[in-house]
Amino acid sequence: MGAFCLAGATLSPGRSSSPRDGLSEEGGVVARGRPMPRPRGATDCYDPVVHDAAPATIRSALPIVPPERTAALIAAIRARLPGLRLLTDPVDRESYRRDETAFLEAGLPGAVALPTTTAEVVELVRLAGAHQVPIVPRGAGTGLSGGAAGIEGGLTIAFTQMKRILEIDPANLTVTVQPGIINADLKAAVAEHGLFYPPDPASYEQCSIGGNLGTNAGGLCCVKYGVTRDAVLGLEVVTADGTVLRLGGKNVKDVAGYALMQLFVGSQGTLGIVTEATLRLRPAPPPKLTMLAFFPSLEAAGAAVSAMTARGLGPATLELMDRATIAAVDDWQQLGLDREAAALLLVESDLPGVAAEAELEAAEAACRAAGASFTLRAADPQEADWLRQGRRLAYRALERLGVAHMEDVGVPRSRIPEMLRAIEAISARHGVPIPTFGHAGDGNLHPTLLFGRDDPTAAERDALVRDELYRAAIALGGTVTGEHGIGLARKDYLEVQRGPEVVAVMRRIKAALDPAGILNPGKMV
Amino acid sequence: MGAFCLAGATLSPGRSSSPRDGLSEEGGVVARGRPMPRPRGATDCYDPVVHDAAPATIRSALPIVPPERTAALIAAIRARLPGLRLLTDPVDRESYRRDETAFLEAGLPGAVALPTTTAEVVELVRLAGAHQVPIVPRGAGTGLSGGAAGIEGGLTIAFTQMKRILEIDPANLTVTVQPGIINADLKAAVAEHGLFYPPDPASYEQCSIGGNLGTNAGGLCCVKYGVTRDAVLGLEVVTADGTVLRLGGKNVKDVAGYALMQLFVGSQGTLGIVTEATLRLRPAPPPKLTMLAFFPSLEAAGAAVSAMTARGLGPATLELMDRATIAAVDDWQQLGLDREAAALLLVESDLPGVAAEAELEAAEAACRAAGASFTLRAADPQEADWLRQGRRLAYRALERLGVAHMEDVGVPRSRIPEMLRAIEAISARHGVPIPTFGHAGDGNLHPTLLFGRDDPTAAERDALVRDELYRAAIALGGTVTGEHGIGLARKDYLEVQRGPEVVAVMRRIKAALDPAGILNPGKMV
Repeated sequence: MGAFCLAGATLSPGRSSSPRDGLSEEGGVVARGRPMPRPRGATDCYDPVVHDAAPATIRSALPIVPPERTAALIAAIRARLPGLRLLTDPVDRESYRRDETAFLEAGLPGAVALPTTTAEVVELVRLAGAHQVPIVPRGAGTGLSGGAAGIEGGLTIAFTQMKRILEIDPANLTVTVQPGIINADLKAAVAEHGLFYPPDPASYEQCSIGGNLGTNAGGLCCVKYGVTRDAVLGLEVVTADGTVLRLGGKNVKDVAGYALMQLFVGSQGTLGIVTEATLRLRPAPPPKLTMLAFFPSLEAAGAAVSAMTARGLGPATLELMDRATIAAVDDWQQLGLDREAAALLLVESDLPGVAAEAELEAAEAACRAAGASFTLRAADPQEADWLRQGRRLAYRALERLGVAHMEDVGVPRSRIPEMLRAIEAISARHGVPIPTFGHAGDGNLHPTLLFGRDDPTAAERDALVRDELYRAAIALGGTVTGEHGIGLARKDYLEVQRGPEVVAVMRRIKAALDPAGILNPGKMV
Repeated sequence: MGAFCLAGATLSPGRSSSPRDGLSEEGGVVARGRPMPRPRGATDCYDPVVHDAAPATIRSALPIVPPERTAALIAAIRARLPGLRLLTDPVDRESYRRDETAFLEAGLPGAVALPTTTAEVVELVRLAGAHQVPIVPRGAGTGLSGGAAGIEGGLTIAFTQMKRILEIDPANLTVTVQPGIINADLKAAVAEHGLFYPPDPASYEQCSIGGNLGTNAGGLCCVKYGVTRDAVLGLEVVTADGTVLRLGGKNVKDVAGYALMQLFVGSQGTLGIVTEATLRLRPAPPPKLTMLAFFPSLEAAGAAVSAMTARGLGPATLELMDRATIAAVDDWQQLGLDREAAALLLVESDLPGVAAEAELEAAEAACRAAGASFTLRAADPQEADWLRQGRRLAYRALERLGVAHMEDVGVPRSRIPEMLRAIEAISARHGVPIPTFGHAGDGNLHPTLLFGRDDPTAAERDALVRDELYRAAIALGGTVTGEHGIGLARKDYLEVQRGPEVVAVMRRIKAALDPAGILNPGKMV
């Protein structure tokens, strides 16, 4: 049947759910808490392995800085950087404790610095190193992995005051910015030159480029244009010892030396702090043509995605929302969506001229062949905006229903239906609704756990459900995080996914670049 | 004027050329042997810096292994891996001394192993480590940086026997291969499934995927489809201590941990040895439509490239050949090219249906507006093959004229005309013809130094000319290598381009992953 089902799942607080209550094992792919045996053979091509490590709950491994050390650092910063904005009032600091990750244990920063220049960042890093106070670099605080979570007594460096555009270069299709700039502001500024910066996390109106670089953020248009790392041509990075590295530049191709730039992107401030970035632009594509396709089952929607992939369609957007997400969005935005459908796909084309129409027609044919109950086109750009906005607001719509915890698993594209079935089974087993939406064209899904607002068991059940979600993704050859990052929230699962040998190599690199462990310790590795 | 000019440049051996002979300084951008002062300011966006280091000639920093150590390793390998093909005869080993880099000083390997499994590679790495004999991983030997150059008494591991396709996965658009497979064989195998592996170095009929991964190789279609790194989804890597790492898989998006996969790609076997790769495929595009445009000046050709970039055209091919290259190709292949033109551009579209015609029409309009003297279309796919083959054979055509040394500089796309003028000035100054062709759409050019076959001064003049080419590229914000790699040939210029701070970080990573320096020492960093 495969249709999304919330049977047995309610939002009432504290409901005790017996595992596997009313649920057949069909579709269950999770060996609970146990590593899957690894088949080997001639075509042993990345057969999934769930590595042996089974944390039952998420432990917080954040350090705590002795108060006298923090006080000494604050005094030193004030002496050396008298013009720097430095927040030390507890009320001010409190708003830098967490990012947007649900159920996150985080520390209260001892001080929050808001530098305006790279030179100030260098000085801050050197002083923090000298006083052995760890640093947390922070963008707009919209992260969903706890990467910017505060460290008790630590120094958070927030980049909200370093948000200038330093250069737009239309001849080379590049823009150079400071890290604090908001993604949407960057998009708007380059759009005035007829240019386009593709990466577009759903939070693009709030999130900063620095945060996007830290997590190697994705978004809706990754399926066509790639993720943040694909858009980076140059970086300025301050390392743990206060050295300023200038990496890359404006060259499209450059193989001189190791891929340091690629390594820093996605390292969540644990290897260095980005203070400037040169990003790749494209000429602005024409306005998108937009289509919705509704499906009677998740399988049919998955089959349509596969068919589009196999036909070589390269839509600018290929997004999925399941029944529960459709209902939440429609309840809020009154878009008139088909609430009977098990899933919808949002497909968009930004090809020039008649090619866009041809692409959407091919997509429509693929959806119908896969069993779509019906399809509809946006009549005009405004209607297209509404539909796209509906998808972007999915998480906010779900947040209206309770405490929402958005997850971020990824699987090889062919395994999306299996992952959706696994989510369904996990939801039923734990009595936790898990509406799911995401970037179907990339295999990156956002199952979103919902809990009642006063549910005293929420955090505990959240940990259990996430454990099973992660293991299900890994068992399908997937990842615990497609675009949000390991940060603090998924740290215990890095080794489960990658295996101890791989994580050991990551730790060697961390130790080589930050031997004193001053940069965002307790995160990522 | 800017037209390419071989004035004063001949192939006669030993011609003494007075520097700047008959040459105005106009267009000369090179501060010879001197670092450029670095302007700083509010819009200090990757202003080019030529870092302070001025090797006059290329030194060979390769180690030499004491013969008794090599002998002990050979004995140990024979004992532990009796079935392994191990070449020890000097005649056999001789053909593993060099790759295709001109004027390369390289050592004679003490032994050449041809493993067939990852397990054999692991054993070889462990034994070589135990005997302190350095390892040189080697693909097809077509490299142009000396990355696979032999080490005297060292162990070369050649991957010619590990060339199987392990899996083609049409549902996920991936192929998993051993590293020894030839690029063209991979392309042909996936084409049978209607699939397409984009990266296409000019040597694609000879070069191996392992070598492509080592150098992060490019090719003609990078301008549209990206370089080798962009096509990698998963890797199996043997590290210096014999650990097998499995990185990535089939996920399009995955941000769990550091970008190790991206780091290993392009590291030329100095951080680990790739034993398996999962690569991203695309559905095969339609046959290309092909256009040639001839220009009366290099500036006009450069302007046409800029105009196409700015108009957002995304051709599948955007290649340049200058007058001397056109003549060499036409002499050999009798294609009837316009030998009066200063340059030609080869532009191809692989868009579906009418979109290809529209794209070529827009490209043609851009070329004509930029001053193209005329344009022509391939009448049919066979004629298109001839024209494309003409570009692919450019280097071979130039090799017929003498000792050819192909270089690989890259610049931001807007600076191509300046780089072409700099090449012209350097050519005239040293009396060395430097026909130039390359990937104009990427800013990646292949100035090709020509010397008489018996020129006793060739190696010395080659070093001087290369020094100026590299510094000219760096002064324009460019790179000494766009796609061939640092290897041995450009090792002395890594620091000139990147600066000591950046290279120091690269060396820390090398030390962290290969503390004993067993993997391809003397190369890259």
